[in-house]
Amino acid sequence: MSNICNKKNEKTIKIGIVGYGHLGKGIEKCLAHFPDMQLIAIFTRRAPESISSQSRVVSFDRINEFKREIDVLILAGSSQDIPALAPSLIADFNTVDCFDNHDKIATYFKKMDDIAQAHNKVAIVSTGWDPGLFSIQRMLMEAMLPNANTYTFWGPGLSQGHSDIVRRVDGVKYGVQYTIPSDEMMEQIRAGQKVDYTLATAHRREVYIVLADNADAEKITKEIKEFPGYFAPYQTSVHIISEAEFFANHQGMPHGGRVLRQGETSKENKATYEFSLNFDHNPEFTASISLAFARAALRLYTEEIFGAKTVLDIPLRYLSLRDHDDILEHLI
Amino acid sequence: MSNICNKKNEKTIKIGIVGYGHLGKGIEKCLAHFPDMQLIAIFTRRAPESISSQSRVVSFDRINEFKREIDVLILAGSSQDIPALAPSLIADFNTVDCFDNHDKIATYFKKMDDIAQAHNKVAIVSTGWDPGLFSIQRMLMEAMLPNANTYTFWGPGLSQGHSDIVRRVDGVKYGVQYTIPSDEMMEQIRAGQKVDYTLATAHRREVYIVLADNADAEKITKEIKEFPGYFAPYQTSVHIISEAEFFANHQGMPHGGRVLRQGETSKENKATYEFSLNFDHNPEFTASISLAFARAALRLYTEEIFGAKTVLDIPLRYLSLRDHDDILEHLI
Repeated sequence: MSNICNKKNEKTIKIGIVGYGHLGKGIEKCLAHFPDMQLIAIFTRRAPESISSQSRVVSFDRINEFKREIDVLILAGSSQDIPALAPSLIADFNTVDCFDNHDKIATYFKKMDDIAQAHNKVAIVSTGWDPGLFSIQRMLMEAMLPNANTYTFWGPGLSQGHSDIVRRVDGVKYGVQYTIPSDEMMEQIRAGQKVDYTLATAHRREVYIVLADNADAEKITKEIKEFPGYFAPYQTSVHIISEAEFFANHQGMPHGGRVLRQGETSKENKATYEFSLNFDHNPEFTASISLAFARAALRLYTEEIFGAKTVLDIPLRYLSLRDHDDILEHLI
Repeated sequence: MSNICNKKNEKTIKIGIVGYGHLGKGIEKCLAHFPDMQLIAIFTRRAPESISSQSRVVSFDRINEFKREIDVLILAGSSQDIPALAPSLIADFNTVDCFDNHDKIATYFKKMDDIAQAHNKVAIVSTGWDPGLFSIQRMLMEAMLPNANTYTFWGPGLSQGHSDIVRRVDGVKYGVQYTIPSDEMMEQIRAGQKVDYTLATAHRREVYIVLADNADAEKITKEIKEFPGYFAPYQTSVHIISEAEFFANHQGMPHGGRVLRQGETSKENKATYEFSLNFDHNPEFTASISLAFARAALRLYTEEIFGAKTVLDIPLRYLSLRDHDDILEHLI
């Protein structure tokens, strides 16, 4: 839709994808919108012939055969797998990941940085929308409006982690969980009012389940609502629906969120900074962000700026298909 | 309000301000929220003793006496003055400016880059909110959601340029102009509908004037509405008000705006990316952004990364008071 000139001297970026779950499939699909990129192979621990894909699917055991051919490897495994997997790959590949376990990012970053520096490789860690795009917004907001408070809201959207918890409850045949941010609290923040923000006051949880035969609806509802950490501190509603309704209305993976910062530039003058995302397909949106950072990874590598990087360590123009003149002309 | 640890090894950033109009005053005031900065002097072409300020005010003619003492000079002159002024300063000072004449940024950037490179200085050009913060958002949106369209809306807010035009009309004693973005068009964009976006369809103009004695209201209203470029293509309303109302309700400098991007991650899935700002005092908000970039300017200089930079050429962590560990812990 936009007329962006590719940098004339840059070669096609050759991408490998590790993992073929929701995120891996999203990357494969979204690559179509990145004209400077080419998918070389998808690597899987499953039997490659069992995977249905138009792309080349290769056993993960053979990944080292591709280390000359691939410019950037996108690690599309789960955040449980990445801390073990990534350090074994960064000696041979530039990597981009969406590692999202906030508590472990600092440790993971340092481990990747040491190996990447030693092997002259680039690892961009924790891309995606949160961490990632939201991290960028939190940073900008805090630096540019220092005397203020930042609030992050997630949703409305489907939470994979909470849906997994719901599905593990005995007697639940199918289930999903939507996280709903408090519109009322957001309005109060915008109005400059003091709010009692905690994760549990700022969000509520809507659960939709299909019961197994002879399941006890009341007992299951209670068990979900009282699940510690995931549900117990939140206002949670449990809706029991038919299998037909479940398959008609609850198959999507929509998500989104907001970062707000509200404060003052001086005693007399307030300011509000707000960033929001809404998207129909969480893995595809996350995939698109990781691809933009794959572009940055190859540029850093080409410029011999090695090591692990967060999204805040990279000049943003490295994400763009446009060259510097084009950026000055059209984006600034 | 937030508990940010200052980088322990960093010295206080010594700031000079060139110009003492709205922006210069905003910088002077907002410096209070930047604990790592200290104002050394404000430079003016007016007689320093005619300026009412708690800070040290010095004649611009003496600025070269301060070249060892000042780390970063913020150029708070108008965009008419900056292209002539800045090149004469960048040989001796690191500079940050809010140059906002979009058509001339590329030329200005190149001129500053040549001199800054030759003299080992750093010039961060065109900070502020648009260009500046909005440029960052346009870049991120385009890179991360390539198959989509970007729309910028300005306001609701007071436009200084349009207010100046209104006040120049014969028979207008006082006057202000507010730019109002089309909420309806923004709703259509969010809903994924096709819109006929032009500056004139996306905004309307509200003018409030106090008439001089014996002025012809009808003639003045017509003249404003038909003013080419500034008003003629827009839906413009002219409200004639009393002097009392003007001084009671039209003394502020509120502004804001939005950048929206709407498109798709794949044929089946839409995504919307939205960024908005609302602030009571345009010069103070612009000042706060320029100060965050002054922090980045000194860091670039310390790391000997010389030359002119746009907001897209700088890793965002350079804007933060936090060190890298603190960023990993609290912002990512």
